[in-house]
Amino acid sequence: MSAPHAVETESISFVDLVQLLREIFLRHGTSPEVARILADNCATAQQDGAHSHGTFRIPGYLSTLASGWVDGKAVPVVEDVASGYVAVDAAGGFAQPALAAARDLLVGKARDAGIAVLAIRNSHHFAALWPDVEPFANEGLVALSVVNSMTCVVPHGGSKPLFGTNPIAFAAPCAGQPALVFDMATSALAHGDVQIAARTGQTLPAGSGVDRHGQPTLDPKAVLDGGALLPFGGHKGSALSMMVELLSAALTGGHFSFEFDWKKHPGAQTPWTGQLIIVIDPSQRQGQDFAKRSRELVERMYEAGQTRLSGDRRYRQRAKAQSEGIAMPAEELAKLRALAAV
Amino acid sequence: MSAPHAVETESISFVDLVQLLREIFLRHGTSPEVARILADNCATAQQDGAHSHGTFRIPGYLSTLASGWVDGKAVPVVEDVASGYVAVDAAGGFAQPALAAARDLLVGKARDAGIAVLAIRNSHHFAALWPDVEPFANEGLVALSVVNSMTCVVPHGGSKPLFGTNPIAFAAPCAGQPALVFDMATSALAHGDVQIAARTGQTLPAGSGVDRHGQPTLDPKAVLDGGALLPFGGHKGSALSMMVELLSAALTGGHFSFEFDWKKHPGAQTPWTGQLIIVIDPSQRQGQDFAKRSRELVERMYEAGQTRLSGDRRYRQRAKAQSEGIAMPAEELAKLRALAAV
Repeated sequence: MSAPHAVETESISFVDLVQLLREIFLRHGTSPEVARILADNCATAQQDGAHSHGTFRIPGYLSTLASGWVDGKAVPVVEDVASGYVAVDAAGGFAQPALAAARDLLVGKARDAGIAVLAIRNSHHFAALWPDVEPFANEGLVALSVVNSMTCVVPHGGSKPLFGTNPIAFAAPCAGQPALVFDMATSALAHGDVQIAARTGQTLPAGSGVDRHGQPTLDPKAVLDGGALLPFGGHKGSALSMMVELLSAALTGGHFSFEFDWKKHPGAQTPWTGQLIIVIDPSQRQGQDFAKRSRELVERMYEAGQTRLSGDRRYRQRAKAQSEGIAMPAEELAKLRALAAV
Repeated sequence: MSAPHAVETESISFVDLVQLLREIFLRHGTSPEVARILADNCATAQQDGAHSHGTFRIPGYLSTLASGWVDGKAVPVVEDVASGYVAVDAAGGFAQPALAAARDLLVGKARDAGIAVLAIRNSHHFAALWPDVEPFANEGLVALSVVNSMTCVVPHGGSKPLFGTNPIAFAAPCAGQPALVFDMATSALAHGDVQIAARTGQTLPAGSGVDRHGQPTLDPKAVLDGGALLPFGGHKGSALSMMVELLSAALTGGHFSFEFDWKKHPGAQTPWTGQLIIVIDPSQRQGQDFAKRSRELVERMYEAGQTRLSGDRRYRQRAKAQSEGIAMPAEELAKLRALAAV
């Protein structure tokens, strides 16, 4: 028997978790294609130990779908704009199906032109960003993506929130080991981490947030309740966040983080913005040894005393999940199964 | 008469400063074309108040040229690789002439393909990065550039320096005002700022550097004397610095920051690495209102309380210099004139 406060866990395989989440999405208003893509995305985050973007997000997805804020059956419209440029109107649906619909065209252009860009607009992104870029690196490509989100970050030197957490993700191949991948909020913390901290009663690191009066706070609930986050690294993180707004919204035709108003859709949680993905084919000319060179850099990073890379924890969790299954709280799994049976 | 410690200043016009610097470069081993480009670059930094990359750099340029480390007469070799890809072998010369040689081809490709990349290798970059990107924004394009430099930054969690200061620069058009431009070292400080602090006897902000024993220090001389800088923003700045190494060196065929050895060239100061520039044409489809949208964002940043943008100080200094001339220490100008008359 478990101790009073111990959490009883149950192991589920990746495939079974995808199937379970797919059922949930299908039964809550998405098309089979959208269900397949979001389930895979969410199960990947859960498997990789990225809990703030794993099954923790399911209630938010469902309340958003129920609110009518996002179109779970949207069919993205792909436009072949130029030899290095693909645009997608996500049609008010999620960003991941828009990326999936444009992906082959994007990769073909990157291989032909050396570089290509995908501009997604009219899209909702409610997931981690690394699952969008990692697969490119697994095909030998270098990928950079940015997505803006929703007003919750105070520009450096300012007093009111304006930017979203506006992450930047990067992926590059590395010989003899998994791809080098990072996914960083340009805010001091990711919004999901604040939500997790609020749920578990943890305090926030100093310098990461302010309360509704603009005063520094360590209380995640004060940040969520009318407060705001600060950019990471002062004016530099703030400038990067501005860049993310420009690339994700001004360039794509999507909304800035401060432009959408979901008040008429109670339960809505997904930012309705835009996303940019740049893909480079390093096999052009002098980049042909990219993966080998990348490995040389990593070896030197270890020699310099760096003990782990950005993606290490995820890869370790993934390997564990693939051999032992994904350990999840039994109570959460039961709730998910109930949602799948609605 | 001036007080004992007051610095006597003299005003010089931008055009005259360019002409003076051009003479200096010409008389110290560069071709007329390289002299023209470097003089313009260095005078621009001086005019814009970016003193760590202005005439302060001239002695470093000259000792490097004298050492035989860089080829001041190098003729860059431009390769038209693919519809979105231009490569340049800077032939052991400076990066700016390589960019100048490839620029028209790059811009043409960006306008046709929607995006294009310039991969510069075998190049020395000893200047600020924003002068490389700002002109693209003045033509309505969006530009992003990275350049790696020389080992002086400890990877996050490590104990020994490996990365360069590895700046990231970004420029985007903004309706009715100068382009939005930032240029940030991914180190806590730029190397030039440490040199300036050492010269003027200032201490460094906490968390920006370590001494030769890996211990935190506020002394700029301790950082320069076998010590090292730290990345900005902890693991995030460190990951960005890694990205800069990969894009500037692994992708272009240039050297990593730790790979070149200038010991046989006493006086050499210019990092022999690579540089990447990505140029996007926002006039494609939904990005056609980019400059207007960019302006909307900036207005909101001011409303949120941000009082100045990254490039503001430079633009203010530039306007002042254009109306009043560039105020420089008379002693420094005399030294420069002596160098031009050698």
